Amino acid sequence: MFDSVTVIGATGRSGSAISARLRERGIRLLEHDGELTILCVPDRAIAEVAGRIEPGAWICHVSGATPLAALDPHERRFSVHPLQTLVRWRGPEQLDGAFGAVTAEDGEALERGFWLARTLGLAPFELPDSGRALYHAGAMFASGYLVTLHQAAGTLVELAGAPPEALVPLMRRTIENGFELTGPISRGDWATMDRHLEAIREQKPELETLYTALAEATAT
Amino acid sequence: MFDSVTVIGATGRSGSAISARLRERGIRLLEHDGELTILCVPDRAIAEVAGRIEPGAWICHVSGATPLAALDPHERRFSVHPLQTLVRWRGPEQLDGAFGAVTAEDGEALERGFWLARTLGLAPFELPDSGRALYHAGAMFASGYLVTLHQAAGTLVELAGAPPEALVPLMRRTIENGFELTGPISRGDWATMDRHLEAIREQKPELETLYTALAEATAT
Repeated sequence: MFDSVTVIGATGRSGSAISARLRERGIRLLEHDGELTILCVPDRAIAEVAGRIEPGAWICHVSGATPLAALDPHERRFSVHPLQTLVRWRGPEQLDGAFGAVTAEDGEALERGFWLARTLGLAPFELPDSGRALYHAGAMFASGYLVTLHQAAGTLVELAGAPPEALVPLMRRTIENGFELTGPISRGDWATMDRHLEAIREQKPELETLYTALAEATAT
Repeated sequence: MFDSVTVIGATGRSGSAISARLRERGIRLLEHDGELTILCVPDRAIAEVAGRIEPGAWICHVSGATPLAALDPHERRFSVHPLQTLVRWRGPEQLDGAFGAVTAEDGEALERGFWLARTLGLAPFELPDSGRALYHAGAMFASGYLVTLHQAAGTLVELAGAPPEALVPLMRRTIENGFELTGPISRGDWATMDRHLEAIREQKPELETLYTALAEATAT
């Protein structure tokens, strides 16, 4: 669908994985004037970089939360957001098995977005432009806040005198089990949860608000 | 170390996995009077059940948060808590690769606790009795609250018009990557986080407190 692509920001975390994958797929990567330009730049730079590119060819960005309007005045446009945490020490294989959110304003753009997502190794789904902020907040709960949760859990376990690495098999299995709830909340064991809170108040009061907010979100 | 064991509560979630594993290991399971009695009963029932057993032989419980004093008046006692989420549709293999918290009051009891943990397939570590509530709160963050996080993320993604199953590869990889933080917080991108909050306030205000509590716990 596109034989040549220009990736802007090819040395960044998403840009390097995306460029490497396109190269693997036999797509020609051009410094300028590819049939498609992919912006892999920080969210706040998208509008400015898009504005400096002569409209005409296709353009897309790979941001989760940024609306398509950031690509103004381009009209042949779409976005593909790899719903994955991308790190520098992994290559393009980290795109495999992840989903990709495709946003577009008409059928032709959508088709091109799906093509790009599949070429990258992503399983594409359509994401309405109006839903991006909420969608990206969800992704943040799933990844950034999972890091927070692990940090909180590790701090408590370590303060208790236990090795924090012991939490990892527990977290993995919680996902493998399809997020089936076990433990105090599933048993309605509020006495145990009161003991948790008491211990947190005594030894790590900074985490009391988070514990309570999570308990309330679980119950609802 | 123990040739015969009596498991009380052998039909429950932990009791069934533990009994099946002991049977696999060639330990004789007796209805009464095993050399060791393992209480796999709900936390609140431990003291009462322990009180009904004639002291003399060894006794242990498998609760995370319950102190050893719940086994009074028994003196030959310890506890082994499998740090794992146990479900009914899996067998004893779910103990493999998990850690086990062993609490004991003297060297002999500790040795027996380590023996039981290893026999079950757990990697044992010692947990001070005084740290149990904090340790168990940590386990709750890691498992119960991971379910909560996934629920919250799924709700937002679905409201945005995207498939919630798309979150699973993201969550798995976040763990596989050793909880390396990526996304808005790692980039100091507060503008994006403000957009998240705005969208949450508009479409799922029940999650605002949780979003904020997590943001604050991440920053600290």
